[in-house]
Amino acid sequence: MQTQPNAYPPISCMVVFGVGLIGGSLTLALKSHAAVTTVMGVGRSLGNLHEAVALGLIDQMGVLDHHSGQDVLSAVQHAEMVVLAMPVGQMATVLQRIAPHLPAHAIVTDVGSTKQNVVALMREYLPKHLAYCVPTHPIAGAELSGACAARVDLYHGRNVVITPLPETHAHAIERVQAMWQLCGAKVSLMTAESHDAVFAAVSHLPHILAYALVDMLAARKNAEQLFDFAASGFRDFTRIAASSPEMWRDIALANHVSLLQEIDAYLHYVTEIRQTLAQQDGEALLGVFERARIARQHWGK
Amino acid sequence: MQTQPNAYPPISCMVVFGVGLIGGSLTLALKSHAAVTTVMGVGRSLGNLHEAVALGLIDQMGVLDHHSGQDVLSAVQHAEMVVLAMPVGQMATVLQRIAPHLPAHAIVTDVGSTKQNVVALMREYLPKHLAYCVPTHPIAGAELSGACAARVDLYHGRNVVITPLPETHAHAIERVQAMWQLCGAKVSLMTAESHDAVFAAVSHLPHILAYALVDMLAARKNAEQLFDFAASGFRDFTRIAASSPEMWRDIALANHVSLLQEIDAYLHYVTEIRQTLAQQDGEALLGVFERARIARQHWGK
Repeated sequence: MQTQPNAYPPISCMVVFGVGLIGGSLTLALKSHAAVTTVMGVGRSLGNLHEAVALGLIDQMGVLDHHSGQDVLSAVQHAEMVVLAMPVGQMATVLQRIAPHLPAHAIVTDVGSTKQNVVALMREYLPKHLAYCVPTHPIAGAELSGACAARVDLYHGRNVVITPLPETHAHAIERVQAMWQLCGAKVSLMTAESHDAVFAAVSHLPHILAYALVDMLAARKNAEQLFDFAASGFRDFTRIAASSPEMWRDIALANHVSLLQEIDAYLHYVTEIRQTLAQQDGEALLGVFERARIARQHWGK
Repeated sequence: MQTQPNAYPPISCMVVFGVGLIGGSLTLALKSHAAVTTVMGVGRSLGNLHEAVALGLIDQMGVLDHHSGQDVLSAVQHAEMVVLAMPVGQMATVLQRIAPHLPAHAIVTDVGSTKQNVVALMREYLPKHLAYCVPTHPIAGAELSGACAARVDLYHGRNVVITPLPETHAHAIERVQAMWQLCGAKVSLMTAESHDAVFAAVSHLPHILAYALVDMLAARKNAEQLFDFAASGFRDFTRIAASSPEMWRDIALANHVSLLQEIDAYLHYVTEIRQTLAQQDGEALLGVFERARIARQHWGK
């Protein structure tokens, strides 16, 4: 399904809910390729939207709150593509409100870190529109946020996973794939279930483990002494413990089934290593460390 | 015990066992301050020793193996300071062989990552020399090795922990402290027991956890897929899983009492978080993540 990115005409009207690092970098990259004609950015912060216009990420802006937003909904009526790039906690409300206004062939895609929950929301709020629903996860750092963090090259060489529903039309998948390839990304397809299992292992579990270590040590009486002597290994191991607590709470809850499985597997495995150490079995410890180093060095290449 | 680094005359003769990143960077820094007159480097690899001479880390070299080494032992007879900078597994043999040749006031210091085991070896092999034994742990990266990795500024701003024995003379401690301060290090004193407990928490435990995660995932049938989608969070979390397996086996075994305590505390804590997640308690999860982020950001400053 390797598509020539330039096989498509520009997207005439794109509506992006959430113009931060992820959404803003997408529109910036598309605009740099003249791959979109008009972008309406929708958000809750007027200041951020003004900044997004000033930075050229969007052409029009709309504020969506509980009481207004008619202009936004009328914009959706002309959308060729709707991108949901806001926190997943706001997705139900947005889907519910845009549902009656969506053109029949408008593609609805998102950028969330978990996919089974997004699929469930799409099934709940857009049951007649599933052929055009294309859940997506671009794998890109999230330390920074806001429109001012957007970068035209954020997706260069990055992985983007598309998790189509069985109902999703092939041409909707291809359209979204082409869009991300144009941004320089390496696109893969997998089921939402596989996606959530893979990311539970390589992303969600490490975040839990890093948060746990820092919180455990910070609660100690000698926490100050401990942190005083923590060095570069600790710094790297715990870097992700500075990630957004709200975002990671939502991810953990949304993917709790896979994540619980991974936590259990890890607890079991560390318990085995603990026994090896308690038995002073240097050979077995060396085996674990050597296998891990080989795998880590191979991956690092 | 803040000592003026330049309060001492140069060390007339220093014998360094192990001229790699740690030992070589020490001699390089001391030579740059003219704080040592003659350095004899001792090791098992003739090639590394030749390189150390060529790089100006040492003035003389000696190869210590099971059959020879008389020249080395006669050098020890004139040593003002002996630095044990080789792997801890070789320390017993070296201490045993140098013991009969040590001048009465020669300081014996080491650079090992665990301290109670070094104290035990000093007690076993140098029982009459404990007043001049100064166990030390410079906290500096160990990704690179060999004489060619030595850097004159390796210890600038780094922590160095000295764990004196009750028998150690104050002036021997001060001499070693002044030496490290001259290299730009921040020197702290603590007991060997406290040292090993602190580093079990902030260094040895994270290494075990990183090795465990990589080895667990590498053994999976879909390991290739998992590593394909691992991103920057995983990269930083697991960087220390590429550390030397032999060195970390030795550290884990040497510090197994403290390390087992830390592993147990961590398993207990992660099990609690697991229960929180199983109960879908978003508030409690958010609390863990928020406390951790605040502590991590505060430390990162």
